[in-house]
Amino acid sequence: MDTVVSSNTRRSPSPELVALLRCKFAERFSTSPAVLLQHGTDESTYLPQPPDAVVFVRSTEETAFVVRACARERVPVIGFGVGSSVEGHLLAVEGGVCIDFSQMNKVLAIRPGDLTATVEAGVTRGQLNAELMGTGFFFSVDPGANASIGGMIATAASGTNTVRYGTMRDNLVSLTVVTANGDTTHTASRARKSSAGYNLTQLYCGSEGTLGLITEATVRLHPHPEAYAAAVVHFPSVRAAVDCVIESIQMGVPLARAEMLDALTIRAVNAHSHTGLGENPTLFLEFGASQAQIDEQAGIVREIAGNHGGGAFQWANRPEERSRLWTPRHHAYFACLQLKAGSRSLTTDACVPLSALAQCIEETQADIAEHGLLVPVFGHVGDGNFHCLVLVDPNSAAENEAAEAFSHRLVQRALRHGGTSTGEHGVGMHKMKYLVEEHGEHTVALMRAVKQALDPYNIFNPGKVVAPAGA
Amino acid sequence: MDTVVSSNTRRSPSPELVALLRCKFAERFSTSPAVLLQHGTDESTYLPQPPDAVVFVRSTEETAFVVRACARERVPVIGFGVGSSVEGHLLAVEGGVCIDFSQMNKVLAIRPGDLTATVEAGVTRGQLNAELMGTGFFFSVDPGANASIGGMIATAASGTNTVRYGTMRDNLVSLTVVTANGDTTHTASRARKSSAGYNLTQLYCGSEGTLGLITEATVRLHPHPEAYAAAVVHFPSVRAAVDCVIESIQMGVPLARAEMLDALTIRAVNAHSHTGLGENPTLFLEFGASQAQIDEQAGIVREIAGNHGGGAFQWANRPEERSRLWTPRHHAYFACLQLKAGSRSLTTDACVPLSALAQCIEETQADIAEHGLLVPVFGHVGDGNFHCLVLVDPNSAAENEAAEAFSHRLVQRALRHGGTSTGEHGVGMHKMKYLVEEHGEHTVALMRAVKQALDPYNIFNPGKVVAPAGA
Repeated sequence: MDTVVSSNTRRSPSPELVALLRCKFAERFSTSPAVLLQHGTDESTYLPQPPDAVVFVRSTEETAFVVRACARERVPVIGFGVGSSVEGHLLAVEGGVCIDFSQMNKVLAIRPGDLTATVEAGVTRGQLNAELMGTGFFFSVDPGANASIGGMIATAASGTNTVRYGTMRDNLVSLTVVTANGDTTHTASRARKSSAGYNLTQLYCGSEGTLGLITEATVRLHPHPEAYAAAVVHFPSVRAAVDCVIESIQMGVPLARAEMLDALTIRAVNAHSHTGLGENPTLFLEFGASQAQIDEQAGIVREIAGNHGGGAFQWANRPEERSRLWTPRHHAYFACLQLKAGSRSLTTDACVPLSALAQCIEETQADIAEHGLLVPVFGHVGDGNFHCLVLVDPNSAAENEAAEAFSHRLVQRALRHGGTSTGEHGVGMHKMKYLVEEHGEHTVALMRAVKQALDPYNIFNPGKVVAPAGA
Repeated sequence: MDTVVSSNTRRSPSPELVALLRCKFAERFSTSPAVLLQHGTDESTYLPQPPDAVVFVRSTEETAFVVRACARERVPVIGFGVGSSVEGHLLAVEGGVCIDFSQMNKVLAIRPGDLTATVEAGVTRGQLNAELMGTGFFFSVDPGANASIGGMIATAASGTNTVRYGTMRDNLVSLTVVTANGDTTHTASRARKSSAGYNLTQLYCGSEGTLGLITEATVRLHPHPEAYAAAVVHFPSVRAAVDCVIESIQMGVPLARAEMLDALTIRAVNAHSHTGLGENPTLFLEFGASQAQIDEQAGIVREIAGNHGGGAFQWANRPEERSRLWTPRHHAYFACLQLKAGSRSLTTDACVPLSALAQCIEETQADIAEHGLLVPVFGHVGDGNFHCLVLVDPNSAAENEAAEAFSHRLVQRALRHGGTSTGEHGVGMHKMKYLVEEHGEHTVALMRAVKQALDPYNIFNPGKVVAPAGA
């Protein structure tokens, strides 16, 4: 087998390849600087790194055509959904051709009888849920951004619904993937479970476009509960709020969402949304069940919250009320950015075993205080996952350095607690340096062997996830 | 990279390797014919194929020692849990050394605060649940046999609890695996979710010992519901019973178990357990929640059952009553074997999308009738997975051939319905011939590339799952 091409050089398409793609895709091929810049920019603090060209594909066959053409020249191909990734996933560090999936936006099938839907990679979660209106079913994975489903699969995304419905991984049935030689593979049947060979579905999920390009997916749907209720409750400490959620889970309460916002985040949302929430650690809860079950679940959680010094519950039942009650959580990210004018956020993504979560957040808040940083903290408490928004002036090297140092200490802390450097954002470029520390040399060597086996010329999103052997 | 050794030759250990292992493991090394025979026999209809030697390991380090020693000579190593696999998984088709994990039977940690436990590979599900008594938590995966957890991970097992708690895949946090060069890898942290690189946990799960040997695992635990209730209800047809379960799931009823037994299976259990159940398609249901929620759920299911012609529900609430009510289901396998004295069962494992399940079972029963076969059918209805027990005289070539032909037609039928050849039993030797048909050439080529990358000398359980290139 050929050795992997070193990742230190730019590998731009030849004039012939550019001509071929332009001829084939016409107005769906672009080298305009604005388009290139947009496709080389994500939500991280990295400077943009534009690709050499962008192709807007409309089918798996077109994707395979581009991959075959690029593979001949060992030119990188980088998938692009909506550009909402946060770890530098889509930066064209070696140049190459960006494949934009936004025109592969058809919901191909909705199967209420199977509780599945099949979508093209560019369908956003919002679009799928809009098309599911009236069926009684919904697609559960909700990472905040209206991400493309292909992108969510590529990063193994999750979000606020995970505590009840699982991550993107748990909601996958099968994938269509274009592989290194431009072949198309279907990773699995449409059965809900299978033991028929190696699980390529789960191998591509979370591979961040480095092993192949996901063009279609069959995902699970869930029935809407009969009723929903939302609640907000304040706590005297982060630990009290966290313990309330974990004890509720241990009691078997199927919380639909359980989000913790720290006092600084509440201050930010108060300023942003003109709300008057008490500036204390606060839980945003959602229940989904029959009304009788919600009442029962709420009673249990209220008692647990009381034992941890939780305040009075604010409740909302009707959709518009629930939406208003949850507004602070939904706007938390943008509200936090406004704590510091003109800032960008280096957003951390530590995830630790549940029993270590309160301790890990407390140590992190002590770190924030010690270093005099401005860092709101909020988290998917039921998953052990929390985000720190380290607000930096993008033009300040000192601030970026301090943010990076904070992020580094946080990753070390998460690993010490038996956790991971990234619960749901992925590795991208930013977490590559922690893979060995998190998994050990042998494990990363195995990942590298898998990369080498499935992408021998290192054309798929090079410079992300694992460095090739010898790089 | 070296090419994979062809799988057509026996690769027995040298006298020196035998001497080394005997010296190192003393009475925990065996070449006694009885021990070899036991370790070359599974629950399939295949004739036994004993290994050349068996080692009873007690640690990951000992496992790594054996793998390193065998790898030097390219001698196969085959993992062995309790021998309950059903597709020829553990047959030593090329000879080699069997690694028996039954003495790696320690529950290393139970962490109620994380809802996880860490176990050695040889711990059985029964043992883990016994050690969990009194904690309020349980390990959910229940394939029927008291299998080892290592074996259950290797085959991506599932079973009667899957409809509520997911398969073995869904209940895995991380693995310790001995790889081809005798290194030890830890596939993930103990966080409940992670996006940190390729998901090796899910790659090894279901790899049937062909990519490495699982020595330890961290698995998820679930809180016991406050109460359980069991019910049995008869239906006029398989379709009616299946539709009742699927509609209940679509309504969001979190059934704990939902098993369908066909009329012939009921006849078998009546004869075996001296019960007097009506010989109709029958659902065995289990609910687990608070008593109020159970009442509510049961009301919904009763109404749906009524719409499908379901009869009166027999109920049981107390543990011993529930156990008695479910006895026919628990004994179904052995009861069915007794329909034909001296028989063994070729047990099929088709799994199809939920909406195709009733149709697929009806077509299968028509096939059974047309060919005059004696084949009880039962299934995990909520997963789309059902088993046919094709009872054969193991000494009758004609019966074995007819059973094989039936199994072949059933696989074709499952694939036509968008399903899989194996929902939970795995590929072993028996389903290898269907991989290309199920997944396509390209997909199987990718599996082969993964095998080649992680087991370049084809020492791990050769002749199973995928044939190496050129074999």
